[in-house]
Amino acid sequence: MNDLDQLNGYFFEDLKVGQSAVFGKTITEADILMFAGVSGDTNPVHLNEEFGKRGMFKGRIAHGMLSASLISTVIGTKLPGPGGIYVSQNLRFKAPVRIGDTVLAKVEITELFPEKKRAAFKTTCTVGETVVIDGDAVIMIPARGK
Amino acid sequence: MNDLDQLNGYFFEDLKVGQSAVFGKTITEADILMFAGVSGDTNPVHLNEEFGKRGMFKGRIAHGMLSASLISTVIGTKLPGPGGIYVSQNLRFKAPVRIGDTVLAKVEITELFPEKKRAAFKTTCTVGETVVIDGDAVIMIPARGK
Amino acid sequence: MNDLDQLNGYFFEDLKVGQSAVFGKTITEADILMFAGVSGDTNPVHLNEEFGKRGMFKGRIAHGMLSASLISTVIGTKLPGPGGIYVSQNLRFKAPVRIGDTVLAKVEITELFPEKKRAAFKTTCTVGETVVIDGDAVIMIPARGK
Amino acid sequence: MNDLDQLNGYFFEDLKVGQSAVFGKTITEADILMFAGVSGDTNPVHLNEEFGKRGMFKGRIAHGMLSASLISTVIGTKLPGPGGIYVSQNLRFKAPVRIGDTVLAKVEITELFPEKKRAAFKTTCTVGETVVIDGDAVIMIPARGK
Repeated sequence: MNDLDQLNGYFFEDLKVGQSAVFGKTITEADILMFAGVSGDTNPVHLNEEFGKRGMFKGRIAHGMLSASLISTVIGTKLPGPGGIYVSQNLRFKAPVRIGDTVLAKVEITELFPEKKRAAFKTTCTVGETVVIDGDAVIMIPARGK
Repeated sequence: MNDLDQLNGYFFEDLKVGQSAVFGKTITEADILMFAGVSGDTNPVHLNEEFGKRGMFKGRIAHGMLSASLISTVIGTKLPGPGGIYVSQNLRFKAPVRIGDTVLAKVEITELFPEKKRAAFKTTCTVGETVVIDGDAVIMIPARGK
Repeated sequence: MNDLDQLNGYFFEDLKVGQSAVFGKTITEADILMFAGVSGDTNPVHLNEEFGKRGMFKGRIAHGMLSASLISTVIGTKLPGPGGIYVSQNLRFKAPVRIGDTVLAKVEITELFPEKKRAAFKTTCTVGETVVIDGDAVIMIPARGK
Repeated sequence: MNDLDQLNGYFFEDLKVGQSAVFGKTITEADILMFAGVSGDTNPVHLNEEFGKRGMFKGRIAHGMLSASLISTVIGTKLPGPGGIYVSQNLRFKAPVRIGDTVLAKVEITELFPEKKRAAFKTTCTVGETVVIDGDAVIMIPARGK
């Protein structure tokens, strides 16, 4: 086996409904800044404390897509991991994430489609007990037996 | 009028179906690196050229959520701009984005919901003529008359 | 089980001599820049192409500690993964890494010390067939049975 | 003398046992984020405050190799400075570094090997009075007389 093969994630045959994985990260000032730089999203609700205080969140909040990106992290590094192809991701933003919050992204397999070698996932981001994003994803996964 | 008010985007009453806006960005090595740091997504298909070459894309590709983040940029900075609240975003990943590609994100209002003060958008990312992401979003927008 | 428990790596009892894991990454201009920024290591052999060309490497090279950091990545994220404590790392720099090279870090358990709950690892970084760093590490690992 | 020659560090003949140099840096959130991106080390002990709190350090800590990189900074920019070649670096991690800590890296020449044009260094990182890393390094240094 080539060492690079060790980088691969799960094969389709190894997956089961109910399997789950998580990744969590504390959202810091530095994350907000870097995400603004990479995305170009300079909305003052993320960068301008005075603007944020006047709005409904009473302060700055993190970019919703920053938290959503942690879902992609679990999918791309843990379940199914490297080799999977992102087909779709639906996101519903339920609550704001503030600087200092620790976001936990969790993905759980809800259905397997053997003919298409695809898996459907429930995808959730929480801060403590609060769901901040819920949604679902479909991933195409390499098969061992093909 | 306070100077901070000038930071606000559109009010609901000012929007029309068919209105659109765009934001574009060339995806560089630095974007991939920064996005990996912020998201924690170290999938080798993004970071490891040798792993990437062995896969179906024949090289490294950008994180799908990085391109998707540009949609949020248009929404948060242009249409409707600051003051809008992200309700949902659905994403279908259609084609890979490579380092050096320029991604153009476009959002277009497809429907207005006056009672809920919400707007539905068609959201698309293209590289040249190729659609790399399509999808739709719903945004809640502050109303002038309330 | 708490979701955060899913973030933990291996317990000491689960490890065997010979077990290995890898992480690989292509070293780009952006990596050199960011590593210089984070470390403060502005040695012109990394940042100044004209200086680099006059030296024995005939061009710029990556920071040795940047490649060495990939060893820490395998240890901290894969084997043994989160929960392990870095006790020591010895590094011998054998060959330069250039921009565009893909460095593969590999760690392999060479000895287990049940009384101290420590594992010794052989740690190697390669570019293709060339060993660029070799060395060894000792990690303290949480035990299930205690 | 070419202006680029002014970038060179010490020649072997100019070094003495006992000579020392330092470099110090405050470790911020941004350093942790950037180092995670460059290294790919997303161990939650560095990125996830809730995970960190449950562990033996009672909070997040900086990557050990980030502090270790400051040793390379002193060597590559001050003593002996540009022109030296890193042969080896041994590291013993003694205590954690937290966000906001200022790490001072110090290198001191302990032995000179004129035949091989190499110097051995004691290398230490401290936070206040606490040694966080100790170790030793060997560097090959250009000679004037050759």
